[in-house]
Amino acid sequence: MGAFIVNTSNSPYARLRPVSISDVKVNDDFWLPRLNTLARVTLPRMYNLLEETGRVDNFRRVSGDFKGGFKGLLFNDSDVYKWIEATAWLLTYMHSDELAKMLNDVVDAVSKAQLPDGYINTYFYDRLSDRYRYLRQSHELYCAGHLIQAAIACRRGGACPRLYDTAVKLANHIVDTFNDHGIVAVDGHPEVEMALVELYRESGDVRYLNEAVFQVNTRGRGTLRGFRMPNAWDFDDEYFIDHKPIKELNEVPIAHAVRFLYLMSGATDVFMETGDKGLWDALNRLWVDLTETRMYITGGVGSRHEGESIGERYELPNDRAYSETCAAVANIMWNYRMLLATGEAKYADVMELALYNAALAGVSLDGREFFYVNPLASRGYHRRMPWFEVACCPPNIARLLASLPGYIYSLSSDGLWVHLYVSSSVRARLGNNVVELIVKTSYPWDGEVNMVVNPSHSDEFTLYLRIPGWSRGAKLMINGRDYEHELTPSTYIGVRRNWSYGDEVTLRIPMNIDLMSPHQHVLANTSRVAIRRGPLIYCIEQTDNPGIDVYNIALKTTCRLEAKFNRELLGGVVVIEGDAYELGTQGRLYESINDVKLTIRPIRFKAIPYYAWANRELGPMTVWVPLMDYYDKVVKAG
Amino acid sequence: MGAFIVNTSNSPYARLRPVSISDVKVNDDFWLPRLNTLARVTLPRMYNLLEETGRVDNFRRVSGDFKGGFKGLLFNDSDVYKWIEATAWLLTYMHSDELAKMLNDVVDAVSKAQLPDGYINTYFYDRLSDRYRYLRQSHELYCAGHLIQAAIACRRGGACPRLYDTAVKLANHIVDTFNDHGIVAVDGHPEVEMALVELYRESGDVRYLNEAVFQVNTRGRGTLRGFRMPNAWDFDDEYFIDHKPIKELNEVPIAHAVRFLYLMSGATDVFMETGDKGLWDALNRLWVDLTETRMYITGGVGSRHEGESIGERYELPNDRAYSETCAAVANIMWNYRMLLATGEAKYADVMELALYNAALAGVSLDGREFFYVNPLASRGYHRRMPWFEVACCPPNIARLLASLPGYIYSLSSDGLWVHLYVSSSVRARLGNNVVELIVKTSYPWDGEVNMVVNPSHSDEFTLYLRIPGWSRGAKLMINGRDYEHELTPSTYIGVRRNWSYGDEVTLRIPMNIDLMSPHQHVLANTSRVAIRRGPLIYCIEQTDNPGIDVYNIALKTTCRLEAKFNRELLGGVVVIEGDAYELGTQGRLYESINDVKLTIRPIRFKAIPYYAWANRELGPMTVWVPLMDYYDKVVKAG
Repeated sequence: MGAFIVNTSNSPYARLRPVSISDVKVNDDFWLPRLNTLARVTLPRMYNLLEETGRVDNFRRVSGDFKGGFKGLLFNDSDVYKWIEATAWLLTYMHSDELAKMLNDVVDAVSKAQLPDGYINTYFYDRLSDRYRYLRQSHELYCAGHLIQAAIACRRGGACPRLYDTAVKLANHIVDTFNDHGIVAVDGHPEVEMALVELYRESGDVRYLNEAVFQVNTRGRGTLRGFRMPNAWDFDDEYFIDHKPIKELNEVPIAHAVRFLYLMSGATDVFMETGDKGLWDALNRLWVDLTETRMYITGGVGSRHEGESIGERYELPNDRAYSETCAAVANIMWNYRMLLATGEAKYADVMELALYNAALAGVSLDGREFFYVNPLASRGYHRRMPWFEVACCPPNIARLLASLPGYIYSLSSDGLWVHLYVSSSVRARLGNNVVELIVKTSYPWDGEVNMVVNPSHSDEFTLYLRIPGWSRGAKLMINGRDYEHELTPSTYIGVRRNWSYGDEVTLRIPMNIDLMSPHQHVLANTSRVAIRRGPLIYCIEQTDNPGIDVYNIALKTTCRLEAKFNRELLGGVVVIEGDAYELGTQGRLYESINDVKLTIRPIRFKAIPYYAWANRELGPMTVWVPLMDYYDKVVKAG
Repeated sequence: MGAFIVNTSNSPYARLRPVSISDVKVNDDFWLPRLNTLARVTLPRMYNLLEETGRVDNFRRVSGDFKGGFKGLLFNDSDVYKWIEATAWLLTYMHSDELAKMLNDVVDAVSKAQLPDGYINTYFYDRLSDRYRYLRQSHELYCAGHLIQAAIACRRGGACPRLYDTAVKLANHIVDTFNDHGIVAVDGHPEVEMALVELYRESGDVRYLNEAVFQVNTRGRGTLRGFRMPNAWDFDDEYFIDHKPIKELNEVPIAHAVRFLYLMSGATDVFMETGDKGLWDALNRLWVDLTETRMYITGGVGSRHEGESIGERYELPNDRAYSETCAAVANIMWNYRMLLATGEAKYADVMELALYNAALAGVSLDGREFFYVNPLASRGYHRRMPWFEVACCPPNIARLLASLPGYIYSLSSDGLWVHLYVSSSVRARLGNNVVELIVKTSYPWDGEVNMVVNPSHSDEFTLYLRIPGWSRGAKLMINGRDYEHELTPSTYIGVRRNWSYGDEVTLRIPMNIDLMSPHQHVLANTSRVAIRRGPLIYCIEQTDNPGIDVYNIALKTTCRLEAKFNRELLGGVVVIEGDAYELGTQGRLYESINDVKLTIRPIRFKAIPYYAWANRELGPMTVWVPLMDYYDKVVKAG
């Protein structure tokens, strides 16, 4: 057994197997400070907020350890579970007496709140006759799923194994209740599907898998219509992805983004166990539609505030982007599972994109504040907050970061896979060999990745290295000699050879600055470009550009841009500096073009990685920048 | 007395006085068919829908004439009142036995539903102990306001004067209830302010004015926080414009658009009676902010679906525009009142713009279907509907159209004003003279306006003619001779002379095709232009451009565009045809600009007036079109 974040070790339809996060040691200049901040600042602060807002007391009142009423919203239990999960993963590879004690206290409170039949939900404790009656809004299986995931993390990582019994009891209650002979319905918010498959993987008990299959196949049949909570907020069936079965979806629905992406994640888990072809076809169709027509260049998903939902094709507004932090986390979860199923690099590309941009923007550099909504342009009033009444995002980004070491590597029957380039070492069993891989890199600032392969004995196996989709001209050297095969972007190059202790592999991925053009149907970005360097999307923030209206900065293709590492800035970032123009504005909101005369002045400008914005003074920000000679550049003279 | 839509005849702070709509005879090729459709199709159909959906029965059940429960939503009474108002205005100048009978029946039902103390509301009839307790959501004064407006229309137009007694009784109840010694609160939805001022004008009873002043001055003080309906939808105070007093508003709030514009209309009415300087300053500040930073080029208002609200400055998305039909109607109401207060043409410009574009798009050409939301780009799925569960828009556009003759002319102490150019005749008393003005024009297709002035005796007075803000090079002739004064766009030219029977005035306003540039901070429209001709904004609809992707049509300033009247199309419209280009699209959602090579092919394209879109086959539509040489054209070489 190992601390697997998604354990596909025995999944018949998964190409890749996971590496235990306890076998990965991250010592990366980019990520290690984030993990340290998570351990020292974010998780302890979040524990205090859970206590202060009554979220833990809600459990204690069920066991009688707290006198008082239920506090907060009906899905608040899930915030506690996600914090447990985050803390459990973190404690797998980092030591913290403080967090261990907090975890123990919270797990105590949770375990003691379980009712004799296995049900646990602190909101419905006061109205048990209503349980499972209002699934459209109640989030009961959603909360249950988070508890199961938290318990699995606690058990696999060893941080607090006893929560597992609570989760199993609850899962048994669900399995006994929801099926063709019991309640035929899904939960308004998908989440339990992933959790049930993982519990099946953990326990070997096929009832949990069957329940996940039931949930996935029952979805889209309108069962939620019979489970409306009176006087509650509501949306249409499509919001809940309950309008059409998954296998019949030909395009991504105008659904709540997190609900959709959790459902896709759970369905992918189901596929990896069952090999359901219809499901797989749907997952692929929907993945293409999402990533090629409805995803932000940051990897964020969610184009509408109303319903926190995905939009129509190419509907990707900047200032009114929703791009919820939770949706970025969920997008990573889904793509990671698609990657496990296939070993195809296109999924790792999206995973990396969402990780370094949309998701990472969700938390401040100091680990104290969070975005719920992640716009791609802001007039300057949008700021991270320490907490939210609906507090799904903070513990979600926390559990993602805590489980990061688990996303870096995978195994297949024939070798070791490197998905993300992070300075770290990993030990993995390949057949009867134990292979250590040591990775050193300054990624994402520099594309040189130095690796040392240390098998316990010389052996033939394959080292799979991801050639990022954004890269051009990557080169590979093995023990100082050029590797002569072509490295195609968005593939894994599989280097199969007899590896010996100390073999050196160097991957050099040029990190050029690219101006990215959006599809012409993205009405929000006509003739604009976004600046990308390596896996990072850049933005222009007011504070770096004093005296310049960032909304009026325009580029030409002739503008020279350069990347400079600035150790002092924002924890150390590569800044992109260059020539640009500041345009004036016309005087009236609408003018005949014959009357418009805009001033123009050459300027120098600076852009920073998008993930780092809003960590300093308030001010406007934009990702997409007008390119004055856009059409000259892109239109092929006919 | 006359059938005045807004009776400023004795308003001390109004510059203009109204003309009775019964003194205006419209015989216009553009508008008369719309009014006939209103009389023959829209209003009878709407009556049937009011009956079928139980909206009239809701009244009958209060009087015992119908057995059954309340049907629908709590503000449904207002739909009935707005239909009464529309029908009453229409019957002022058009004969219809059918409508007269319908009106009589509905007024019967309404009148009989009044409680002895004057209160009337069919929803709260079942819960009278709750009346006025939930003003944040209850719409009780909103509904009352619509009843009062309907009753005034019935009385002034003579269609059904007895409803006036009902309205007065209700208004007395409100006046007795809401004041400094009673309930200190406003209604969640402004509307009653306009109605109360008008009732003051009608009755001369200053209590109604005082109540309107109370409502206007109490707003923004957070009184609604104490009047929340349990388990109801809710929004923040700013949505209700209850976060800050009107006089302290320095910018347009992120408020529900219709609420904001009704409030501004009512506040303008209050100003015209009281001369409150602080209010006037606020109205002017907010008007500039609205029209110069938050109004669509169609005159529509409302940038967000969530909260049906106005957005931040320059936040004007196209496909996700809300631009509710009711907001366009309300924008016309407000600008008409600002115009009455000042006689300044800038208000008439906005009134005309919203009338011919955002508002008129709200109803299909056949008068049978309605838009609630009016986007400026559509992927083709947005269609008008016969009715809505929340049915505010259909009767609102109906009452606007029915009262149209009232918006065309005004009077001042020294003359007659022409705001809108509509083939019609008007008779108006100027001192001891009765002046007839006969207007003949093909507006909005052609800018030549031929007028004949027929005073009852030769007399000196001023004829004020609006020179539209969009015009360039307008010319005026009087009795065949050039009028030598400069005609400045967005002013009224006041022609003061001794007028004799048969004097001929010809105004020639060139109708050029203009490409309109948006302010550079309108992120949604970077390097795009909109096509305008005269008062009309154009759009490109798929059905006129077979085989061309309308989202990929691009213009250059060198493209020749021409206007052609097509009598067969859409009831007869000037189509704009011209040269343009169809661009290809890149293959992926995001690509390095170095990899993008778009095809381009010269095409011919057609655009139609925006108001006429979505009357034929489903298909994409766009108002704003990329201009490939935008920067070459607008940037002043520095």
